[in-house]
Amino acid sequence: MATPVKVHGPPLSTAVSRVLACLIEKDVQFQLIPVNMSKGEHKSSDFLKIQHFGQVPAFQDESTSLFESRAICRYVCEKYAEKGNKGLYGSNPLAKASIDQWLEAEGQSFNPPSSVLVFQLAFAPRMKIKQDQSLINQNHDKLAKVLEVYEKRLGESRFLAGDEFSLADLSHLPNTHYLVNATDRGELFTSKKNVGRWWAEISSRDSWKKVVDMQKHSS
Amino acid sequence: MATPVKVHGPPLSTAVSRVLACLIEKDVQFQLIPVNMSKGEHKSSDFLKIQHFGQVPAFQDESTSLFESRAICRYVCEKYAEKGNKGLYGSNPLAKASIDQWLEAEGQSFNPPSSVLVFQLAFAPRMKIKQDQSLINQNHDKLAKVLEVYEKRLGESRFLAGDEFSLADLSHLPNTHYLVNATDRGELFTSKKNVGRWWAEISSRDSWKKVVDMQKHSS
Repeated sequence: MATPVKVHGPPLSTAVSRVLACLIEKDVQFQLIPVNMSKGEHKSSDFLKIQHFGQVPAFQDESTSLFESRAICRYVCEKYAEKGNKGLYGSNPLAKASIDQWLEAEGQSFNPPSSVLVFQLAFAPRMKIKQDQSLINQNHDKLAKVLEVYEKRLGESRFLAGDEFSLADLSHLPNTHYLVNATDRGELFTSKKNVGRWWAEISSRDSWKKVVDMQKHSS
Repeated sequence: MATPVKVHGPPLSTAVSRVLACLIEKDVQFQLIPVNMSKGEHKSSDFLKIQHFGQVPAFQDESTSLFESRAICRYVCEKYAEKGNKGLYGSNPLAKASIDQWLEAEGQSFNPPSSVLVFQLAFAPRMKIKQDQSLINQNHDKLAKVLEVYEKRLGESRFLAGDEFSLADLSHLPNTHYLVNATDRGELFTSKKNVGRWWAEISSRDSWKKVVDMQKHSS
């Protein structure tokens, strides 16, 4: 049996849960290694050896160490091409290019406002950090504009990159999950015909349900 | 002869120049199609058909339309694998994973503070937009921290992803070029032993010199 890959970090982190969802879709065995961020373990010299920026997740597959959740997901899909969901990163160059394009749209356009809103609206109150209302309003407007583009796109195709669920959709799960379930901004998604339909479909995948379950048991 | 690919957008844009540098490295013929952003051409209905977010660049290769500069670069390297610089996106899965990792580090860690500084320090004055000093300070500090990690990394290897120049290094050219040549923050790079050595090497590549030349002739 192959040695399980190692994921260092808490499943409550959006970047960690992105990698977990990918590993479960690809049916790749993994070992989750806790990193106690409140104790600063992600800034320890041992951790910095595998994750130079002191962020989670860090990832290890035998002698390969990687960081950056979207790069880890791409690697998992390439290395374990024959396992689990074989279409997750496309099965031909054109499908892959479309997935890369929407995965970049997630990283560059969707993630920046979403992650600010998740932090400000879901995490700051729990951490007793004062919310910044002008930052919230600014990023709410940015996200609303991005979702208008998504609404149009998802009126033309079932998923972002085409007719199949892909890494591009998967990459939206962690932030959207918090926005819909742990903030008052869920309507940004659920009130839109196509985005709402898409969210209902991608969030009910078994892989994502398993990640949410891991999050519940780690909190 | 193959039909040249089309790049829509001005070479002065960092995202457009990232794609141009990649096409020149890969020795792929291209046609540059002007988009007059001050006249709002990037928000016209024709342009929105090929670039849903109304941003530059948009890219067309025969019947394939793509957006997001890093996704376009990946596509160009995959589609034209046998042309030009064959190692630009790695020649084996492990090299590729390392390139993806540092390309994501550029997109997620380096680009956000860099692009704020480029806009605030190089473009805002020309556009007679008031600079936001607290935003500048905040992002200066963020970029300085990222470059500390780069300094360490570039003490271990000649380029970010390994011993060869790759898409990961290339992707840093557009923002760094402005920071070094059009702002007072060049020292962030040039005062560091390894980052300075790396910048001197990557910025003197023929491909990048050609892009800078195109920028000069378009201003």
